[in-house]
Amino acid sequence: MLTTHPFDDDKLREECGIFGVYGAETASAMVALGLHALQHRGQEAAGITSWDGEEFHTHRAMGHVAGNFDNDEIIRQLAGDIACGHVRYSTTGETALRNVQPLYADLSSGGFAISHNGNISNATNLRRRLVREGAIFQSTSDTEVIIHLLARSRYRTLLDRFIDALKQVEGAYSLICLTPEGMIACRDPLGIRPLVMGRLGDAIIFASETVAFDVVGAEYIRSVEPGELIVVTQGCEIRSHRPFGESVRPRPCIFEHVYFSRPDSVLDGNSVYAVRKGIGAQLALESPVEADLVIPVPDSGVPAAIGYSQQSGIPFELGIIRSHYIGRTFIQPGDKVRHLGVKLKHNANRALIDGKKIVLIDDSIVRGTTSLKIVQMMREAGAKEVHMRIASPPTRHSCFYGVDTPERGKLLAHKMDVAQMAAYIHADSLAFVSIDGLYRAIGETMRDDDSPQYCDACFTGDYPTTLTDFDDMAEINQLELLHERVV
Amino acid sequence: MLTTHPFDDDKLREECGIFGVYGAETASAMVALGLHALQHRGQEAAGITSWDGEEFHTHRAMGHVAGNFDNDEIIRQLAGDIACGHVRYSTTGETALRNVQPLYADLSSGGFAISHNGNISNATNLRRRLVREGAIFQSTSDTEVIIHLLARSRYRTLLDRFIDALKQVEGAYSLICLTPEGMIACRDPLGIRPLVMGRLGDAIIFASETVAFDVVGAEYIRSVEPGELIVVTQGCEIRSHRPFGESVRPRPCIFEHVYFSRPDSVLDGNSVYAVRKGIGAQLALESPVEADLVIPVPDSGVPAAIGYSQQSGIPFELGIIRSHYIGRTFIQPGDKVRHLGVKLKHNANRALIDGKKIVLIDDSIVRGTTSLKIVQMMREAGAKEVHMRIASPPTRHSCFYGVDTPERGKLLAHKMDVAQMAAYIHADSLAFVSIDGLYRAIGETMRDDDSPQYCDACFTGDYPTTLTDFDDMAEINQLELLHERVV
Amino acid sequence: MLTTHPFDDDKLREECGIFGVYGAETASAMVALGLHALQHRGQEAAGITSWDGEEFHTHRAMGHVAGNFDNDEIIRQLAGDIACGHVRYSTTGETALRNVQPLYADLSSGGFAISHNGNISNATNLRRRLVREGAIFQSTSDTEVIIHLLARSRYRTLLDRFIDALKQVEGAYSLICLTPEGMIACRDPLGIRPLVMGRLGDAIIFASETVAFDVVGAEYIRSVEPGELIVVTQGCEIRSHRPFGESVRPRPCIFEHVYFSRPDSVLDGNSVYAVRKGIGAQLALESPVEADLVIPVPDSGVPAAIGYSQQSGIPFELGIIRSHYIGRTFIQPGDKVRHLGVKLKHNANRALIDGKKIVLIDDSIVRGTTSLKIVQMMREAGAKEVHMRIASPPTRHSCFYGVDTPERGKLLAHKMDVAQMAAYIHADSLAFVSIDGLYRAIGETMRDDDSPQYCDACFTGDYPTTLTDFDDMAEINQLELLHERVV
Amino acid sequence: MLTTHPFDDDKLREECGIFGVYGAETASAMVALGLHALQHRGQEAAGITSWDGEEFHTHRAMGHVAGNFDNDEIIRQLAGDIACGHVRYSTTGETALRNVQPLYADLSSGGFAISHNGNISNATNLRRRLVREGAIFQSTSDTEVIIHLLARSRYRTLLDRFIDALKQVEGAYSLICLTPEGMIACRDPLGIRPLVMGRLGDAIIFASETVAFDVVGAEYIRSVEPGELIVVTQGCEIRSHRPFGESVRPRPCIFEHVYFSRPDSVLDGNSVYAVRKGIGAQLALESPVEADLVIPVPDSGVPAAIGYSQQSGIPFELGIIRSHYIGRTFIQPGDKVRHLGVKLKHNANRALIDGKKIVLIDDSIVRGTTSLKIVQMMREAGAKEVHMRIASPPTRHSCFYGVDTPERGKLLAHKMDVAQMAAYIHADSLAFVSIDGLYRAIGETMRDDDSPQYCDACFTGDYPTTLTDFDDMAEINQLELLHERVV
Repeated sequence: MLTTHPFDDDKLREECGIFGVYGAETASAMVALGLHALQHRGQEAAGITSWDGEEFHTHRAMGHVAGNFDNDEIIRQLAGDIACGHVRYSTTGETALRNVQPLYADLSSGGFAISHNGNISNATNLRRRLVREGAIFQSTSDTEVIIHLLARSRYRTLLDRFIDALKQVEGAYSLICLTPEGMIACRDPLGIRPLVMGRLGDAIIFASETVAFDVVGAEYIRSVEPGELIVVTQGCEIRSHRPFGESVRPRPCIFEHVYFSRPDSVLDGNSVYAVRKGIGAQLALESPVEADLVIPVPDSGVPAAIGYSQQSGIPFELGIIRSHYIGRTFIQPGDKVRHLGVKLKHNANRALIDGKKIVLIDDSIVRGTTSLKIVQMMREAGAKEVHMRIASPPTRHSCFYGVDTPERGKLLAHKMDVAQMAAYIHADSLAFVSIDGLYRAIGETMRDDDSPQYCDACFTGDYPTTLTDFDDMAEINQLELLHERVV
Repeated sequence: MLTTHPFDDDKLREECGIFGVYGAETASAMVALGLHALQHRGQEAAGITSWDGEEFHTHRAMGHVAGNFDNDEIIRQLAGDIACGHVRYSTTGETALRNVQPLYADLSSGGFAISHNGNISNATNLRRRLVREGAIFQSTSDTEVIIHLLARSRYRTLLDRFIDALKQVEGAYSLICLTPEGMIACRDPLGIRPLVMGRLGDAIIFASETVAFDVVGAEYIRSVEPGELIVVTQGCEIRSHRPFGESVRPRPCIFEHVYFSRPDSVLDGNSVYAVRKGIGAQLALESPVEADLVIPVPDSGVPAAIGYSQQSGIPFELGIIRSHYIGRTFIQPGDKVRHLGVKLKHNANRALIDGKKIVLIDDSIVRGTTSLKIVQMMREAGAKEVHMRIASPPTRHSCFYGVDTPERGKLLAHKMDVAQMAAYIHADSLAFVSIDGLYRAIGETMRDDDSPQYCDACFTGDYPTTLTDFDDMAEINQLELLHERVV
Repeated sequence: MLTTHPFDDDKLREECGIFGVYGAETASAMVALGLHALQHRGQEAAGITSWDGEEFHTHRAMGHVAGNFDNDEIIRQLAGDIACGHVRYSTTGETALRNVQPLYADLSSGGFAISHNGNISNATNLRRRLVREGAIFQSTSDTEVIIHLLARSRYRTLLDRFIDALKQVEGAYSLICLTPEGMIACRDPLGIRPLVMGRLGDAIIFASETVAFDVVGAEYIRSVEPGELIVVTQGCEIRSHRPFGESVRPRPCIFEHVYFSRPDSVLDGNSVYAVRKGIGAQLALESPVEADLVIPVPDSGVPAAIGYSQQSGIPFELGIIRSHYIGRTFIQPGDKVRHLGVKLKHNANRALIDGKKIVLIDDSIVRGTTSLKIVQMMREAGAKEVHMRIASPPTRHSCFYGVDTPERGKLLAHKMDVAQMAAYIHADSLAFVSIDGLYRAIGETMRDDDSPQYCDACFTGDYPTTLTDFDDMAEINQLELLHERVV
Repeated sequence: MLTTHPFDDDKLREECGIFGVYGAETASAMVALGLHALQHRGQEAAGITSWDGEEFHTHRAMGHVAGNFDNDEIIRQLAGDIACGHVRYSTTGETALRNVQPLYADLSSGGFAISHNGNISNATNLRRRLVREGAIFQSTSDTEVIIHLLARSRYRTLLDRFIDALKQVEGAYSLICLTPEGMIACRDPLGIRPLVMGRLGDAIIFASETVAFDVVGAEYIRSVEPGELIVVTQGCEIRSHRPFGESVRPRPCIFEHVYFSRPDSVLDGNSVYAVRKGIGAQLALESPVEADLVIPVPDSGVPAAIGYSQQSGIPFELGIIRSHYIGRTFIQPGDKVRHLGVKLKHNANRALIDGKKIVLIDDSIVRGTTSLKIVQMMREAGAKEVHMRIASPPTRHSCFYGVDTPERGKLLAHKMDVAQMAAYIHADSLAFVSIDGLYRAIGETMRDDDSPQYCDACFTGDYPTTLTDFDDMAEINQLELLHERVV
């Protein structure tokens, strides 16, 4: 397995990034660049589909965008000035090429390609019904149910058929679709996953994060709003639809601010970097400690550590050095050296730490395995005291909206209270930012418990949708819908 | 492109070979061996699907069986004692992995895998209708229409649904299908493509040719009869069905005797080698010539040349030596050396030929390009006279039943009469065996023109089925049903 | 391992083929074609070196010429109108890229590339001495000693230094060398391995066999004579040298006639095909048998079988059909099917053989493993009697001149007399052509025992040179000169 | 090209890292880990040689250690408890596998492997002489001259022969050699390149930097001293030799402190991180500026930026976000998007920078191309003023001791004075640390101009050795010693 995760294995993992361009001469090259900028949202596979006015062209590959899509020949074959793409970390479905998006189908209306960030939480039920009716699935992806619902809809226009399909699904979805009639971008009624719209010259661009606009030199226009469906047609004309009405209060994912999005992205008007520094400052206010150094767990803890340092006055220092070569994970050979693991990625800056009291800042604790190793590494390097501060509340619940979470039983915060966790990771003290402190850093005064402003189910267990497929968790674990294993 | 055709490019090409095993511990290993023995029937791709009682397992690959399926790890993953496979030279549809058979689908009845030798001649029409009804195709193969028809059939049992599907298709099909309920083997009502049944211990085996039984050590039982559908279930129990009645006279493909089948196969009771020697003897009777040597065009002309030599008394000699390394085609680099083509495959045995009158024996002439080069090579090697004798009648018509023929306009015999052809290839004389001579070599007294015993449409233009998709040839050439190109 | 031997594993194996062109615009493309035509002389690796008047260019690859050298880009990089190449089956030295020829060295006189067919039988002794003197070897090939001897020679001109080097080596060598001063081709004093000279336009060509001339369209001039050294310089001028005098009677390898050379080659004026037919005729005279069919073991037994058939009047028939796909060996997966081996390559033409008395013709018996299986296959196919006739005398001794022979103890003819061998392979009778019969087929009246006309040591044990390295066979087996294993 | 440089292309580049282990059961696995930790010193190729008491084993590969050496099978084949390895960025010689170190030779004393960090500055002269004497080089690497000198030395013992060879070479070399008699580690008399000695259990370890000890869990003992030669033999016994006497004052490379070494390494007793922070503080003292933010050019500018921020009181912020996926460079497809280059690696944190006066901190300026782009990026993100501060003096001279520097004419500081450079990169102000300031940060009071404490030739032009090969620079540029190009 060549591709790996630069972020720690002991993190929640965003599942997907999507990017689409309408009306640029070099559409597929721009999609490749945009996906490269979104690579942190999905490292296992990537795909691009283009439409040249006559034919659709698709290339999919396991692995990173770089190395697979930075190839003149491939980009040339992805002809046309309309294209969309997808980077993927597998949520549901095996990691096989036929699950790599954009998914494509020949419909009676012509070709149809779809890129999906999120997760359909009633996909299993829908699929079962569709197969009974004679549908043949080509992937094991939840996204494919949308295509089959669309293909079978009795409505007349493609747009009505697409809306008919969306009304039958529940869960989280930000979508970019390619059709001979134009590009469709939309976001589920709660707006759980992000989607932004930009412009470069005349071309209209959609992306999961604004950072992808920076890379291609595009200008940010606005977010696609929760429940909004935008159609771009001939001449880059834009029409906005509201197929679901506007009654529900949106609840975008709060973890995008904590960890998923890049610090140089802007989410719904908030600088991600500034929010993270703000969380660090909140932490310094809520859980102060007397220490010599503030040390970030690289790289995700850096902004919060700067915030903590500036608020507390304790100097910020690089106490942990991160190898630059972990883009390609080193698989340690030989049994005797296997326990060295974490040192390949991080190494203590021993000369700095020796004899010091330190505050370690990390963005979250998932299973706790990495925190345990890092505290131990600090102690071996001579730290006198190790205080851990976490820039999010304890992660206690699974996500069903397109984020890879370990089963609940493996979440450290599900099994232990904060004191037990401190003991487990051998920290002298441990503190998490409060849920209200987190909301405060994003600019709210506090969480509105009656109608929360964000989806924070991973911290609170307060899920914003029904979870049809998951009502019986035991059942889902046994479910073996698909018998074929491609070897 | 690694895989190539050992047989001359200037030949008709059989499209597929199929092989299935029910009830052997090493089913998928046996399928791999069987497909290897059938490799001459399709060299571009191969696939195997197995059923282990719980799950289906599939592996498909571009290229030869050897190198792709002679791998312990892959065979181990293809677990189970029931398996079927396919070798393919692309007929319809691009040469992409998703067109490689066995095709597989998850139906409401469970998994379903299908291997198909032949061609559905109304597939385009059926596909158009199915897409209109919401079906989503995963391949561009004509075979997939059978699966969709089956998935949508209103009949209750899987077998009735399958027969319902078959009754809607026209053309040529020998099929081996894998279902959780057992293996199904069947042959279209005319029996255009071959299919034989054998046994190894308790296991039941189906194959395109008997030579595949020899390789796995199995015993030949009988041909699957035209219009017969055989179901093998638990305990290797066999049930024969006749879903199409028995009114039509079968018309198996006569070209299997001329060229497609291996000389060591037995087709409907006739040794292919003996038939080919018989054709050679017929040629010697019908078109004698005074000459010093009988020389086969290797390798397909050898049996007929032996027959010609034995009938005529002119000695059989190897006047053309074939390179042993053409399994991997040498692509000549450099413009200046490109014209050398044919010498890489064949070389004149100059010391033998110089100053001699020779009879060249080949099985067929398609475009005539190779014949032209070989006659020229003989003359350059010093041959005094070159007489060409062909072990089949002139090939004047296209095949729509699973054989790769050039468009009609490129068939030499469509454009010229025999005298013109002789002039074109620069032969001193040229003769083809008569159509009745050909039937005679297979054991008939002559062709029954009212109700021919074989499909000989490539020689006579007398097609045994309607050709729905091809009524308007111009149309079919324009038709661009599928817009997606996988790059 | 991708590359394999189309010839039976149970054969002696020629080690190398060489080819060189002086003065053609497309020199390296011609070398690639020539090597492709010589591929039967070495299938494990190939290499080409060219000289463009300023720089030497080299490409080496494991595997066949096709697939490695039929590439415009590679041929273009092998610039210049002078080039030589090599195909290799490893004799001495591991099969690693750095042993692949042409070997190259930067000498004080400039670059020097060498292609060698044969084996230096005192290489181990010379190497030991050279290393003691400070030489650093880059390969484990015996050929490299020639370069070091040349580099260290005290003579002044490159030619004198080269001759000085050759005078220190013993054994078999046909060489083509590239230097800034011209091309050198030479053959050891006994002329053990073949080397021929040809012409295409102005260009001078050297090759192991004439068949390579046919493929590139060149004209055969003459053999390079045993002990002759030819220098080609500016303007394709040729100068012939006789550095070793002319006292010794040449003894070229007789096995080239029996098996190594292609049947369409001409060796020292004799058509290889005609010689092999002649051996078959001798066999029919010396060891007649009453039978229904003469059947060749394909493909090497075919010419002798035709000769036997024509002499005896028993019809020649294809009783064994050879798969066309063995260029890529099928490695049988699964233990249960491993014993099927031989059927993957050969299959009995059962319909022909059943109930018949047959004469099987093969060119040689080495270990006897294949003969055993083929006789058994014939019996299983129903043969009433199986008589084996071999177109060479019993192979009883190892070769030390560039041919891969099993250790002597594994040669069937070393362990058994003819009667025992017949019993071992279960033949009803077995006969070998006599040594004088073999000489007769090549045009001699008989073997001159006092001063034999050929090297026939593999049959007679009469080695034409001293064997310095091999005086103590036990020692050589232990000798582990080279400690580095490239993993 | 798969492998790339995570560090900016516009930097000087250390050429090599070396690592050796004597006496550990898992020696080659430890070497792989150690090389991985030294990957920043050479990313183009890697190699390991081991000695198992009987045989040497070598594996070399183009590309990173991860992906090539983290493989159980390869590590298992590199058997033995003594091993050494090398990572490489090519200095002299083409980047071909045969130049990848460790270089290996079979000498009369047995095998000999050598890993070299540095550059022999009279290699061309030595090579010319050796070739004239009959030596045949297998690589184009300067290191190989050491082996030939050793092989040809007239001294009796291996150690004396090795010292004899070293006395003939000039330039920079830290070496780890493997012989059947033990491991040899040594450093040139000036100690230009670093080499440290550590211990893990009984095993003795040598490495280019201490960070490699951290990764394998070893303990740092001391530096190998300039001019010291250490032999480790049976039982991990260590003997130190001083073959060159002790008269010269050492001059280790000062750029190791500035950029080459990892911040978590300790160089001759100085923490690299602390030195770099110290340079930043010096810069703040020498060249203060009024500004809102201190922003590092990631990643190499971070420690100096922290130092600058702490000294000046201006807050440290992440104003440039670095992509995590540049381990694999994205090659932008399509002409129209090619100019986007730098944004793929760095992106401005626009929300932070807009409207601010900033101080940018980088470690050095080489060609200035990156500085230009980064200043421009800051302005486009809205920076009001951009002040650049460089944590080293202007780089004005080439290095001949194993560091890849552009030809002198391309060094920005060679062509311009500081004011011109500021204008060129469009900075509001530009300042470099003074040479004495740099020495001060390392703990000296100032540079001793009569006998400098470090090699700082890249800043001062004061080269510590003669430069035999480079006396005539014009000549060296023409010199085309090696004619063979491996294609």
